[in-house]
Amino acid sequence: MRVCRDLWAKKKEVMLKRLLEDLHIGYLDEGISDLLLEIFKREDSFTISSCSGRIVFIDAQLPWVRKMSTVVFKKHAPITIEEFLEITEKPVLSKLWVIVTGPILHLSTATLKEARTLISAGRAAGFKHSGIISFRKDGIVLELRSGIGLTYPVKVGSKLLVSHEGIADVVSTCNEVLMKGKERLRRLKEVITNLRDRNIN
Amino acid sequence: MRVCRDLWAKKKEVMLKRLLEDLHIGYLDEGISDLLLEIFKREDSFTISSCSGRIVFIDAQLPWVRKMSTVVFKKHAPITIEEFLEITEKPVLSKLWVIVTGPILHLSTATLKEARTLISAGRAAGFKHSGIISFRKDGIVLELRSGIGLTYPVKVGSKLLVSHEGIADVVSTCNEVLMKGKERLRRLKEVITNLRDRNIN
Repeated sequence: MRVCRDLWAKKKEVMLKRLLEDLHIGYLDEGISDLLLEIFKREDSFTISSCSGRIVFIDAQLPWVRKMSTVVFKKHAPITIEEFLEITEKPVLSKLWVIVTGPILHLSTATLKEARTLISAGRAAGFKHSGIISFRKDGIVLELRSGIGLTYPVKVGSKLLVSHEGIADVVSTCNEVLMKGKERLRRLKEVITNLRDRNIN
Repeated sequence: MRVCRDLWAKKKEVMLKRLLEDLHIGYLDEGISDLLLEIFKREDSFTISSCSGRIVFIDAQLPWVRKMSTVVFKKHAPITIEEFLEITEKPVLSKLWVIVTGPILHLSTATLKEARTLISAGRAAGFKHSGIISFRKDGIVLELRSGIGLTYPVKVGSKLLVSHEGIADVVSTCNEVLMKGKERLRRLKEVITNLRDRNIN
């Protein structure tokens, strides 16, 4: 399927407007907005959605089953031991999971060449699970994802699975993983800026 | 870049020979060999590598940093509480992580059309992180991956992070996640067999 340039360009316009609105209302954190703007500057790319990485606690049987699951807590910055204790003191219906995710970006490109350039850029910046996930009339859709992340059951019913003396380590590990993800985001920004400086379109 | 059919076909031949050798020596578990053969039966596809999912314990600062990390234990089947205790009783240099991974497949296709068909098949079977990861002269390379998995620090130095009463839950959760992955593998086999029955090449 060939990308229809007109459709693609219209979508880019809409997404740019949305991005600028998000920036204006302070919805985006600084770490990711620079990167997103850098991608929009490229002639054949724009971003559809992004997450800079986060720590989420969910009450669910399995963490990837959305049905019957509840997000108990969500934060895009490091958590404190107090927050951890507060969250784990609340009653749990099924299992309480902590999920730390690295950054994830969905992009649309107008050409296959640009898609390949950005997948290579992603890989160079440590987003090792980067690839084309679909071909649509309004663009080639890419996902850039790193292997960074934790998924972790912390409580089953009323039973805490983390040992008392381990709580501080669990919290600091979650935060360390989160920050490693943000670091990759900075690397990606660098790699993509370098492409522009070297005039690689 | 266009795929060179001759190069691609030669590689398929080599990979098929290797697969049949692996089958012969019993290197592949039954769950995945059916699926791999089904993919090889397709005119424009073959598999490069695969893992049916596994439980690994590694001693490392961070689980995705290979440097200075040691695989302490690896199994493609459920683990027992005894195994968990035995592993966690041994001294740890840095941090001991348990990593349960879902199935992962790397495929090569001769055409973009076939790549898209298999990405859709992957997605339909719950391999939601499926995509084209590179374009090479000898084939278009796909990765089919699900979001299934656990990554989990269980010990820091000599300190166990899992509570005594939580050990059985941690072990059963690891096993549950592993088995959910194997289930997706069966679904993928079904979806791809259906394509053939419906004559979708």
